[in-house]
Amino acid sequence: MPVRLDAQDPRFAEGFEGLLHAKRETSEDVQALVAGVIDAVRKRGDAALIDYTARWDRQTLTPATLRISQEEVDAAVGQCGGDLLRALDTAAERIESFHRLQVPETTDYRDAQGVRLGARWTAVGAAGLYVPGGTASYPSSVLMNALPAKVAGVERIVMVVPTPDGAINPLVLAAAKRCGITEIYRIGGAQAVAALAYGTETIAAVDKIVGPGNAFVAAAKRLVYGTVGIDSIAGPSEILVVADNRNDPAWIAMDLLSQAEHDTSAQSILITDDPAFADAVAAAVDRHLETLPRAAIAGESWREHGGIIVVRDLLAESPALIDRLAPEHLELAVEDPDALAAKVRNAGAIFLGRYTPEAIGDYVAGPNHVLPTARSARFSSGLNVLDFMKRTTFVACDAESVKAIGPAAVTLARSEGLDAHALSVALRLPGGGQG
Amino acid sequence: MPVRLDAQDPRFAEGFEGLLHAKRETSEDVQALVAGVIDAVRKRGDAALIDYTARWDRQTLTPATLRISQEEVDAAVGQCGGDLLRALDTAAERIESFHRLQVPETTDYRDAQGVRLGARWTAVGAAGLYVPGGTASYPSSVLMNALPAKVAGVERIVMVVPTPDGAINPLVLAAAKRCGITEIYRIGGAQAVAALAYGTETIAAVDKIVGPGNAFVAAAKRLVYGTVGIDSIAGPSEILVVADNRNDPAWIAMDLLSQAEHDTSAQSILITDDPAFADAVAAAVDRHLETLPRAAIAGESWREHGGIIVVRDLLAESPALIDRLAPEHLELAVEDPDALAAKVRNAGAIFLGRYTPEAIGDYVAGPNHVLPTARSARFSSGLNVLDFMKRTTFVACDAESVKAIGPAAVTLARSEGLDAHALSVALRLPGGGQG
Repeated sequence: MPVRLDAQDPRFAEGFEGLLHAKRETSEDVQALVAGVIDAVRKRGDAALIDYTARWDRQTLTPATLRISQEEVDAAVGQCGGDLLRALDTAAERIESFHRLQVPETTDYRDAQGVRLGARWTAVGAAGLYVPGGTASYPSSVLMNALPAKVAGVERIVMVVPTPDGAINPLVLAAAKRCGITEIYRIGGAQAVAALAYGTETIAAVDKIVGPGNAFVAAAKRLVYGTVGIDSIAGPSEILVVADNRNDPAWIAMDLLSQAEHDTSAQSILITDDPAFADAVAAAVDRHLETLPRAAIAGESWREHGGIIVVRDLLAESPALIDRLAPEHLELAVEDPDALAAKVRNAGAIFLGRYTPEAIGDYVAGPNHVLPTARSARFSSGLNVLDFMKRTTFVACDAESVKAIGPAAVTLARSEGLDAHALSVALRLPGGGQG
Repeated sequence: MPVRLDAQDPRFAEGFEGLLHAKRETSEDVQALVAGVIDAVRKRGDAALIDYTARWDRQTLTPATLRISQEEVDAAVGQCGGDLLRALDTAAERIESFHRLQVPETTDYRDAQGVRLGARWTAVGAAGLYVPGGTASYPSSVLMNALPAKVAGVERIVMVVPTPDGAINPLVLAAAKRCGITEIYRIGGAQAVAALAYGTETIAAVDKIVGPGNAFVAAAKRLVYGTVGIDSIAGPSEILVVADNRNDPAWIAMDLLSQAEHDTSAQSILITDDPAFADAVAAAVDRHLETLPRAAIAGESWREHGGIIVVRDLLAESPALIDRLAPEHLELAVEDPDALAAKVRNAGAIFLGRYTPEAIGDYVAGPNHVLPTARSARFSSGLNVLDFMKRTTFVACDAESVKAIGPAAVTLARSEGLDAHALSVALRLPGGGQG
């Protein structure tokens, strides 16, 4: 049974802490193995990639067949139904147009002292996108990871996707094609991350690696961080639904299950102000679980990690709870969702109102579905265009403006005992170096 | 002697690779020790902090004296000369006004399908600023780390600074006061990072930790990452100066030394198109080293890690070299620095023209001096206001707009085998759940 808490209960704080800090992730210790794989790829390049792929994906490759050809991609697209391709296209268009609004502008101005100042943004040179194989191979993830890079202007986007026993989801290749990705390698695991980070004879290194993966992929990304940039390491998915009793309990129950079905470690929590509505949602969850294909996963997630919190006043009490939970997804199924959203600080993405199920955001709404998990919405953001760009500031002084601001720099540098700093400014002042 | 390379030399590529990949950082393996310290602070809170501070800083503290009082801060400010305080104020004003331009705006719009979409930025709730003790205790770093947080609107900014044997740089406290920081603790090392990340009886946990530190501090930041956000872990400082022969060699030499004096692991590189000018700069470096107070450090850095690269055509050849080096600081002391800057992709900060020594940016120019090192300018940016904010996207559908975009979500969710996702949308469509 999911945890049920009443905010009026004297032991509520304790129960809430339990919900907050329950360890859901099973941390496999794969670091040593992964370090060995990375080392092998650095030393032996393609040969190591080919060996690991034979061992783990049961695929015999050569340097020439590491890459998935354009013909294979086109054949895969041909296998997808028209409805599916149209849905993919709708999603891609909406994601792209939302992300296009995130492209930052250059600033460039001269201040009152005559100093020219500014900052410009440039795209990362090359980005690598990891796409899992098997059942977790989601075309929607390809769109969500690749389109921000494309909108950012990344010139080279490389995709890696393992094809265990030769199997690949054709819609994943269709999604890659829709994003304009032409460089795709049939490799996965830590070895694929190592190839992207360090390069091999066939695969040139990239500057940044993004995309979801299993424990091996996550460990590899941690280990190559610094050599390349990485996105955040995603934990199990989470949803927090705040709902009054004017919702259909069946809708809210399905929203809770839509996260629960991802993974037995996922967490779905409901906050409501009506104990009877809480009961109705709990009953609707049980009813849905009778027919849902992924009921085994969703049911375990709900029983082990789910929660129902009853408060008196949603607008007054839930913001503090939301901010502490800092949920990846926050659904506000209340009469005035804006009033509640305005009081919230920490959430990855907010779904406003009764007609905005979280799943609409997983596919077609437009905002990214790669969002901060495990309370990291307190300090981090969902994947976006800025993750594929970097900011270079610039300064230009002339003989006059360095005279205006230089003396303060000289004073501070001297006080810090950094005389070469002080002198490099002082040399440019009248009286050079004696100033 | 610094490495000298000629781009015409057939072995140039090899020499350049050496410069690019030379390991400058001495990596002390302090991870196990640091993990023990963090664990002790999590378990024993203030008592552990007090024990470690007694052992390593030779300071006897109580929970009541962990915090530096406002009286102590005011007394420290009283010890600083008026000139110094005025220089600090000039720096703070300029840094603050540059960073104010970085505050992002909320987007909120309705698209053609009637879906309301947007993103809003909120400040991190609480930020912790680590300030090193001893000789590396730089007031300018306090300004550079604290002011972006202040401009971002962070409500609680906490500073930790070790005071070994009771010593503290009064200007560090003056800088904290100038930034409006009132919560300051006299602790340092891994124990201070642990206290900020997990909290103790006296110190409430923060959401993000920034600021430079030694190997222990860096290891602690890596270990608490995830529980809190951190800034990037800075490596040794770097400068790349691109200069034609119309510069005063003494100026360029001092600019190279201004990074070299930081640390024996720092790296200073000159790219020029005139071998005679290269000789003149090298000679000027030697001359400066005769009188520079930190000549021992700067000299070792220059001899061990410095480099001079001679090319034929600065505008044609240097951009590719710059992008591979991806320097923290890039000084363009050439006739048309804008033309060269426009061809550069990777640099933390650019200093344009002959009158803009890098050191002006360390103190008073306005842009941040916390910048990506070790080639990470390929994928990351200097510290800025966005580092203290996070972005929450939002979506709102109504019964009409979910009808417009929902069916594509249902199609994609079904193809991914995520039926609860599909149903949570379909239930809201006409014919609910049968759609």
